[in-house]
Amino acid sequence: MAAMAAAAATSSAGLGAATCQASLLQPANGRGRSWRQRRAFCSWSAAGSPLGGRCSSRRDSNELFSTCSSKHRAVSLSSSSSSSSSILSEGTVWRALAMAAGKKGKGGNPWRRSRHVCIVLAAATVDKSTAPTHAAAAASNSGGDKPRVMVIGGDGYCGWATSLHLSNRGYEVAIVDSLVRRLFDEQLGTDTLTPISSVHKRVAKWKELTGKQLGLYLGDVCDFEFLADAFEKFQPDAVVHFGEQRSAPYSMIDRSRAVYTQQNNVCGTLNVMFAIKEFAPSCHLVKLGTMGEYGTPNIDIEEGYIKIEHNGRSDVLPFPKQAGSFYHLSKVHDSHNIAFACRAWGLRATDLNQGVVYGVRTEETAMDEMLINRFDYDGVWGTALNRFCVQAAVGHPLTVYGKGGQTRGYLDIRDTVQCVELAIATPAKEGEMRVFNQFTELFSVRDLARLVTEAGEKLGLSVVTKNVPNPRVEAEEHYYNPTHTKLIDLGLKPHLMSQSLLDSLLNFTLQYKDRVDYKQIMPAVSWKKVGVKPITVAESTVSVTSAV
Amino acid sequence: MAAMAAAAATSSAGLGAATCQASLLQPANGRGRSWRQRRAFCSWSAAGSPLGGRCSSRRDSNELFSTCSSKHRAVSLSSSSSSSSSILSEGTVWRALAMAAGKKGKGGNPWRRSRHVCIVLAAATVDKSTAPTHAAAAASNSGGDKPRVMVIGGDGYCGWATSLHLSNRGYEVAIVDSLVRRLFDEQLGTDTLTPISSVHKRVAKWKELTGKQLGLYLGDVCDFEFLADAFEKFQPDAVVHFGEQRSAPYSMIDRSRAVYTQQNNVCGTLNVMFAIKEFAPSCHLVKLGTMGEYGTPNIDIEEGYIKIEHNGRSDVLPFPKQAGSFYHLSKVHDSHNIAFACRAWGLRATDLNQGVVYGVRTEETAMDEMLINRFDYDGVWGTALNRFCVQAAVGHPLTVYGKGGQTRGYLDIRDTVQCVELAIATPAKEGEMRVFNQFTELFSVRDLARLVTEAGEKLGLSVVTKNVPNPRVEAEEHYYNPTHTKLIDLGLKPHLMSQSLLDSLLNFTLQYKDRVDYKQIMPAVSWKKVGVKPITVAESTVSVTSAV
Repeated sequence: MAAMAAAAATSSAGLGAATCQASLLQPANGRGRSWRQRRAFCSWSAAGSPLGGRCSSRRDSNELFSTCSSKHRAVSLSSSSSSSSSILSEGTVWRALAMAAGKKGKGGNPWRRSRHVCIVLAAATVDKSTAPTHAAAAASNSGGDKPRVMVIGGDGYCGWATSLHLSNRGYEVAIVDSLVRRLFDEQLGTDTLTPISSVHKRVAKWKELTGKQLGLYLGDVCDFEFLADAFEKFQPDAVVHFGEQRSAPYSMIDRSRAVYTQQNNVCGTLNVMFAIKEFAPSCHLVKLGTMGEYGTPNIDIEEGYIKIEHNGRSDVLPFPKQAGSFYHLSKVHDSHNIAFACRAWGLRATDLNQGVVYGVRTEETAMDEMLINRFDYDGVWGTALNRFCVQAAVGHPLTVYGKGGQTRGYLDIRDTVQCVELAIATPAKEGEMRVFNQFTELFSVRDLARLVTEAGEKLGLSVVTKNVPNPRVEAEEHYYNPTHTKLIDLGLKPHLMSQSLLDSLLNFTLQYKDRVDYKQIMPAVSWKKVGVKPITVAESTVSVTSAV
Repeated sequence: MAAMAAAAATSSAGLGAATCQASLLQPANGRGRSWRQRRAFCSWSAAGSPLGGRCSSRRDSNELFSTCSSKHRAVSLSSSSSSSSSILSEGTVWRALAMAAGKKGKGGNPWRRSRHVCIVLAAATVDKSTAPTHAAAAASNSGGDKPRVMVIGGDGYCGWATSLHLSNRGYEVAIVDSLVRRLFDEQLGTDTLTPISSVHKRVAKWKELTGKQLGLYLGDVCDFEFLADAFEKFQPDAVVHFGEQRSAPYSMIDRSRAVYTQQNNVCGTLNVMFAIKEFAPSCHLVKLGTMGEYGTPNIDIEEGYIKIEHNGRSDVLPFPKQAGSFYHLSKVHDSHNIAFACRAWGLRATDLNQGVVYGVRTEETAMDEMLINRFDYDGVWGTALNRFCVQAAVGHPLTVYGKGGQTRGYLDIRDTVQCVELAIATPAKEGEMRVFNQFTELFSVRDLARLVTEAGEKLGLSVVTKNVPNPRVEAEEHYYNPTHTKLIDLGLKPHLMSQSLLDSLLNFTLQYKDRVDYKQIMPAVSWKKVGVKPITVAESTVSVTSAV
């Protein structure tokens, strides 16, 4: 396997330019079980172009084709110039592949249905001493046979940290993202405390630092034509799906955002399920759910399923869900849809019901400021802990919603990336829908305020707490005891919340204190006032005040 | 109240022409609790025009306005000709209402936010001896103060029967429908066994026979502008929501139909919830769910909720759902969304988890052949019982899917309309999400085949049964014991399946035997083969064969 990987080659015209990558591949029957056998015939990524590789020099392509035996066909693609205008075009690669596959099969991409082998080598003349090839990167992986992982939503908070972590651990990673999360910030006037770079610069910096190429497919998973193309090209062994609108308050701004959230999340996930069924049926779907799907029942929360004894009979059934926003509900819907696909189609899935994630730095995002992760503290995208840190840093009272007894599961971002890797490393079985509760500790909002106050006082900050009317509809004092042993059993080593972590978070917020937008630190959205009138940015500022 | 209703007037330019109706209204604060107080300022319907009233004679409108005191304003609208070109235009009514309301409030329709009274009288010169007015119809209702009921999906199988039943019982009924169910038949080449009339002819015939006017709002509930308009005009006291894509096989044809089904059903229902919250917050939502939401667990199925004892604690939680198609899943999603809206907004809702409905005739649809209901027997829209009756009538073997042990709840269409009326008559409380299991008897597919065989033999038909491969993914032998007492407690008097009912169903199919399309009576859609390639009609015929 290592020899095969070492034979792969990649090309790059350097930072910011389009990149064509293609790998030497095994005989591919498209339905086998081993990681490698189920690989794509070609992967295609662009570090610098939002739309993939571009080629203005078509004449090169005529020199490229060579075929092997009927069982083993090969195509070698090369480009002789290092200028971006001579990078291999996507069309060239497709045509080459079609020829190599002998146009077997009917309909769709001719080579997708082919049982023949298609070997593709792409080599553009670049400075290979500074731009390590995939071959080199793959060869340097200790694992040697790591799955190809598509990270949907890989430009987001959890997605970016996960993409880098998996890439660093030797997985072949492709980011699929529409970048709409960045658009939401533009539209609402919100911003991350930390200055994040464009996805293109991030990916290029990662390559520069590590030699590892992140595939980049920029588009919307609700657009099935785009998603199918990404699947056909990348042929993932695992899909980590973070690609949803993930803010409860955003989903409660107005009717159109509520509908958008459910349509985007539910239909996007349906598309992902169908793409797996069609193009990569053995692919393992690792879907990010949320602990918020369960609500706050008066009994212990199990991991996805509960054995119910009733009238003398018993069954193990999905744990009842009582989600508390249109966003949380969208994840409940996803869970039901995925469970059905596992039963009906034999899909293999892991649903990670994640708690509230905190922290900014992972081993990888800390390598360079251009890799820095986002840190949201505003009333729409931020979490209570982030908001409290920012409030402490700028001398604003910590705003506790209601009584502050709302208790939730929390985890460090370093544990998010660890959990996802653990899920990928031990995939769900065919037809299995595993559910893991992904958090490491429980805190109430009051607990968090107290911890931030203590950490702030050690740094000489004067921190006070203020209870504000709760904009949400939720129990403010309740029983809460969710199980969370399955990821520990798989090997999770938690980073528990410590005073030193809080110190570092607070120091972090002090470092970027000048970027704090005071208008953003109060609750912005009321669960009860959500109406049908579209809320514009100007109005949303008004509603911040009127909501509470 | 009866006096008020009697003072209302309506107008009609006769069968097939647009109709403007407007009622004398009580002082309307828009948020009160009594049925009447929460009524619309104006209702508007069209018996003959798909787009509502039309007026080419605008000059009339200048004579129409008269205002009363600042607390009680009145507008009288009249039209002097009975030709369709002089019927009051919608714009005329709106302008009159706006003037009467003194354009109070900001944004939206000026009079919607007004606290002033708006009295509207519309009188077109028609032959009142043959077209009874609403006033007369309302006065003749024994109830006198029945709710105004919007029936979404009122042109469909259950919706049509329900609309007529409620109208007959004295409710003021408006049908909201996009008629897309008729389009599906055109697209798939399917057709009801019974020749159904256009919705316009149906509504006109109902008026001709009974003097009762059904409001008609033709549009898509996923289009919120349309839905809001319908709500503002009709101001329902109850909404019965049948308006969803309701076929499991349709949702399993291909990816685009799966996504369509969930988007249409979930987003349409979200819109209905928001419309109620905004325009009629005390309105009772009666939502058609399905027994299929529960799947076939190994324990007794309760009505919506189950008390769970777990680790020494207990809670009453939503009954776990395990739906078996993208259609059934869409109803699970709806249920979760509605439950949240009840908790967060105080919405009052009844979720009717209905079993499989059979039968064609209700008291009302039997009045005239132009009121006949649809009878679907094909592999996409039909039910097993209907299909068996058609198969027996034409000498085709009864096609039992798999072992035939699949057991489900069933009910007569006459009980559907009864159950809906019972739910409306005793509304859910504010914030309550009631769930009723709406069926009267359990049958396995084998049971149905046996009953149809016996009935057929009595009529001299030779009936044989054939087991065909099951196109669905479902348990073919399973425990099934769902509770269904709540509707009985409310007064449901079931019509149980009898040999005489089966005789009449069989005779019915024999009557329309010449309309049977043999190509449609085999299963058309495979749960396992559903793919991403759009299935056209021609291909869907092919898949009938390949699916089984």
